Amino acid sequence: MTRVRLALVQVNPVVGDLDGNAERIRRILDKVDGCDLAVFGEMALTGYPLEDLVLKPGFVADSRAALEKVAGASDDCTLIVGFADGDEDVVYNAVAVCQGGRLHGVYRKRHLPNLEVFDEVRHFSPGVDPLVLYRIGGVRVGLAICEDLWAPDGPVKALVAGGAELVAVANGSPFHRGKQTERESVVVANATSSGRPLAYVNLVGGQDELVFDGGSILADPSGRIVARAPRFDEAVVIVDIDVPDVPEAETDLQVVEVSEPRPRDDHRVATPVAILDPLAELYQALVTATGDYVRKSGFTDVSLGLSGGIDSALVATVAADALGASHVHAVLMPSRYSSDHSVVDAQELATNLGISTLTVPIESAHTALGSELVSAIAGTLTRVADENLQARIRGVILMSLANTFDWLVLTTGNKSEAAVGYSTLYGDTVGAYAPIKDVYKTVVYELARWRNERDGAPVVPVSIVEKAPSAELRPNQRDDDSLPRYEVLDPLLEAYIEGDRTRVELVSDGFDAGLVEEVVRLVDRAEFKRRQNPPGVRVTQKGFGRDRRLPLVNRYRG
Amino acid sequence: MTRVRLALVQVNPVVGDLDGNAERIRRILDKVDGCDLAVFGEMALTGYPLEDLVLKPGFVADSRAALEKVAGASDDCTLIVGFADGDEDVVYNAVAVCQGGRLHGVYRKRHLPNLEVFDEVRHFSPGVDPLVLYRIGGVRVGLAICEDLWAPDGPVKALVAGGAELVAVANGSPFHRGKQTERESVVVANATSSGRPLAYVNLVGGQDELVFDGGSILADPSGRIVARAPRFDEAVVIVDIDVPDVPEAETDLQVVEVSEPRPRDDHRVATPVAILDPLAELYQALVTATGDYVRKSGFTDVSLGLSGGIDSALVATVAADALGASHVHAVLMPSRYSSDHSVVDAQELATNLGISTLTVPIESAHTALGSELVSAIAGTLTRVADENLQARIRGVILMSLANTFDWLVLTTGNKSEAAVGYSTLYGDTVGAYAPIKDVYKTVVYELARWRNERDGAPVVPVSIVEKAPSAELRPNQRDDDSLPRYEVLDPLLEAYIEGDRTRVELVSDGFDAGLVEEVVRLVDRAEFKRRQNPPGVRVTQKGFGRDRRLPLVNRYRG
Repeated sequence: MTRVRLALVQVNPVVGDLDGNAERIRRILDKVDGCDLAVFGEMALTGYPLEDLVLKPGFVADSRAALEKVAGASDDCTLIVGFADGDEDVVYNAVAVCQGGRLHGVYRKRHLPNLEVFDEVRHFSPGVDPLVLYRIGGVRVGLAICEDLWAPDGPVKALVAGGAELVAVANGSPFHRGKQTERESVVVANATSSGRPLAYVNLVGGQDELVFDGGSILADPSGRIVARAPRFDEAVVIVDIDVPDVPEAETDLQVVEVSEPRPRDDHRVATPVAILDPLAELYQALVTATGDYVRKSGFTDVSLGLSGGIDSALVATVAADALGASHVHAVLMPSRYSSDHSVVDAQELATNLGISTLTVPIESAHTALGSELVSAIAGTLTRVADENLQARIRGVILMSLANTFDWLVLTTGNKSEAAVGYSTLYGDTVGAYAPIKDVYKTVVYELARWRNERDGAPVVPVSIVEKAPSAELRPNQRDDDSLPRYEVLDPLLEAYIEGDRTRVELVSDGFDAGLVEEVVRLVDRAEFKRRQNPPGVRVTQKGFGRDRRLPLVNRYRG
Repeated sequence: MTRVRLALVQVNPVVGDLDGNAERIRRILDKVDGCDLAVFGEMALTGYPLEDLVLKPGFVADSRAALEKVAGASDDCTLIVGFADGDEDVVYNAVAVCQGGRLHGVYRKRHLPNLEVFDEVRHFSPGVDPLVLYRIGGVRVGLAICEDLWAPDGPVKALVAGGAELVAVANGSPFHRGKQTERESVVVANATSSGRPLAYVNLVGGQDELVFDGGSILADPSGRIVARAPRFDEAVVIVDIDVPDVPEAETDLQVVEVSEPRPRDDHRVATPVAILDPLAELYQALVTATGDYVRKSGFTDVSLGLSGGIDSALVATVAADALGASHVHAVLMPSRYSSDHSVVDAQELATNLGISTLTVPIESAHTALGSELVSAIAGTLTRVADENLQARIRGVILMSLANTFDWLVLTTGNKSEAAVGYSTLYGDTVGAYAPIKDVYKTVVYELARWRNERDGAPVVPVSIVEKAPSAELRPNQRDDDSLPRYEVLDPLLEAYIEGDRTRVELVSDGFDAGLVEEVVRLVDRAEFKRRQNPPGVRVTQKGFGRDRRLPLVNRYRG
């Protein structure tokens, strides 16, 4: 039994910011001083995912150069740091073993996910070097990267069979609802079946449509989780683990000598952070992703159209939680069809949150544009054209203010609307980031209620949560004039989108045949709108983005 | 020597339209009656690329069922037809051998491209069945699909070594500038090195951002191209080829017996269609892609903003050539800054093309929106905000008319503008399809001049071709106030985008260091705009779309 002091280092790198990320790693060196081993997340030095940046040979060379500097700065504690390795011809997703000012070795990811949001076969070559173990703090450590742990024929089994006493896995595992449970069961299953402690370190923070939720853990061979880092926050969790010795005779992999065991007087334990409930983790995912998108893009302030409806109310709340109320600017754009209660509700929400409001009525622009159009065509606009006109005037106003004040516009559409195309392209879809684009309408309500209950005092006025949803683009309009009720719609959308079911299968699943026909038609037909929608955080296993790459011209009606 | 009658069948399928594509194939059966072998393009039955449609098990089942029907309809002539093969667990990109009312076998693509615009590792499993030959018209035929021919370790060599006397390759090879030359050299090199005739059949037509340009060929073992189908058009090219016999003793692959040689009195030759010059093929690519996107989306008519500048002039001309002048609707939206000559030039172009025009001045909306905004913020709009406001009002007008008349809006931006972000999101970028989004500005001029010379009488007024480019969003504005001249800008953009060069490399390539700094900054910063731009035809090897997947949050400044 050898006691090893391990640091799970959960960082939030910025993609492409090699200097900044290296500096972030260097600042952590003091914190992990005295540990045997500090494990960082996948690609902690470069940010992740890099996408086609890795196809640029100059970037890969810069990544390697940055890694050399990190290695040079390393001290007694061994750092396991992810980076992009390779040269002009071949690139690897890799982790480096850095200690005592030098690079002791590199492990290259063998199993490259090329599904869902991942395109790693496009970007990397699989590692094929013989497996190696690193003796760190006197213990033989086997390394792996993310998908390597999940692949049935992954290297973890071979590392253990070859004599690894401890396994450390660097991950860039994005959030979706329920992901932490899946992750922990895989880690625990590996630790118990191998009889070796397993350290699983994830990234944290938002990167475009993905949000990495941390939740790094250390599982002991009995399957007990002896450390769990917080979700969604940077953290350095230091914990001692007693590693059962495996006789040298059972080792048949090359062992690279890195560091000896160090005697210590104290024993560090790390009480695992509690698991978050499903709505809490979802809400935090939206907050983290939105805040990081704004900050990492170099902005401080955001704006959004506040209609008095539930979607914009939730987005405003998320934004205020992410950036601080003083950085959120609500724009009220009433029309001839806006109800009084909408304006009152919007104002009440703004007051509750402490965010500023600005009111720009759309009436004069609606009249001016409407009459120019009517006179140009010597006829009348269709009802849809007139409704869209109002939404687009609002889009223009939001963008004009954003251009003037250097605000980043948040889009307030939800997944149910995006699915059926219940939105106006260049109207309510304008914006740089869409915090709830992957959240179904029924879940929007759940989140608003959850957030209201969280602090005791409701933030989102009860009348917003309870009134019937309406776009207010004509008198007395209600969403359920043109759509099924969301309680009926959302389960069907989920089966069609996440479940990839055909119409026939949906009917045999028990959905109403007429409803299936109508909803599938709406979803298919709205693909062109979704293609031009802004990015937003993915929180399901199939967001509208890199997860679901459908052709625009597509006549399949199965 | 056995004489075989071969049909190169160049079809334009619609993605997902299994019934329609099957009907298209059946209608060709009469034309190929009397041939030994009719070779269709890749995925001719399903359309290509299918993208995530193939992840839907129901679609793959439907593809197989449609294939069974095609096989059932086959007669003496053997059909080689591409389809999606597989089941719930595994999907293949395949071609079927259909003859005499039944299916004789299936070849599954072994080499799956997963680069540039292709994601085939995401969608398909590679074929691993033992190679087989099919005796068709008495000749042993080896089959392959697209990338199989280009891969250095592809199956063509093994098929030939195993006794194939003729090789037939089904392709879905999208156009980019210069592609036909590359293709023909690969086909000729394979035919001469193997000593076997090689039939190369491509698809034709537009599918979202891709355009398949046909140009199917048959090369004989001496490397002579004995048939070449037209570019960009559907065609059935029938040609007899004398296939040198390879002794049965040299065959070690399984041979599936399909059909006997047929005695014929006549000898069909097919004079190869001439090669297109580079601007002619580029122009035709734009016309085909635009026309197909509109038609395949179920629209007949398009509209666009006609400014009097070169970009919208070229797009209007492409649209008129693609859809007929009566289906193109030009919208003139003059502002207080529009020069008289712009309006005159736009009108002259419309007259030359025979397209209708509609004029909607933006002044009253600009005034109404501008004053509402100014009074709401109690200040003035920035210059950029005011310029964008005008562009966005135009976007709103275009969309209102399109909503009213069921037109599809064409976007007129070029690649140089998209690269440096010289555009207004939700303004001049609105639209469903962008015909010249992958054409640099200098090439826009070349194309306009080429099109003017093509028919003798200039279509694009000379003053449009010769005046200095301007967005006309403020008095006397010229593009080169804020950008380098396009003759200087475009080569740098091409090196940075297509060449993936870093700043340091660009300077060492001879570009001015200050210019490099400025242009790279502009290109990187405009990624968020490009992400929300409409699709448009890809004509280079790196379009802004699936070819170049860069993160939005990306601080790499190499």
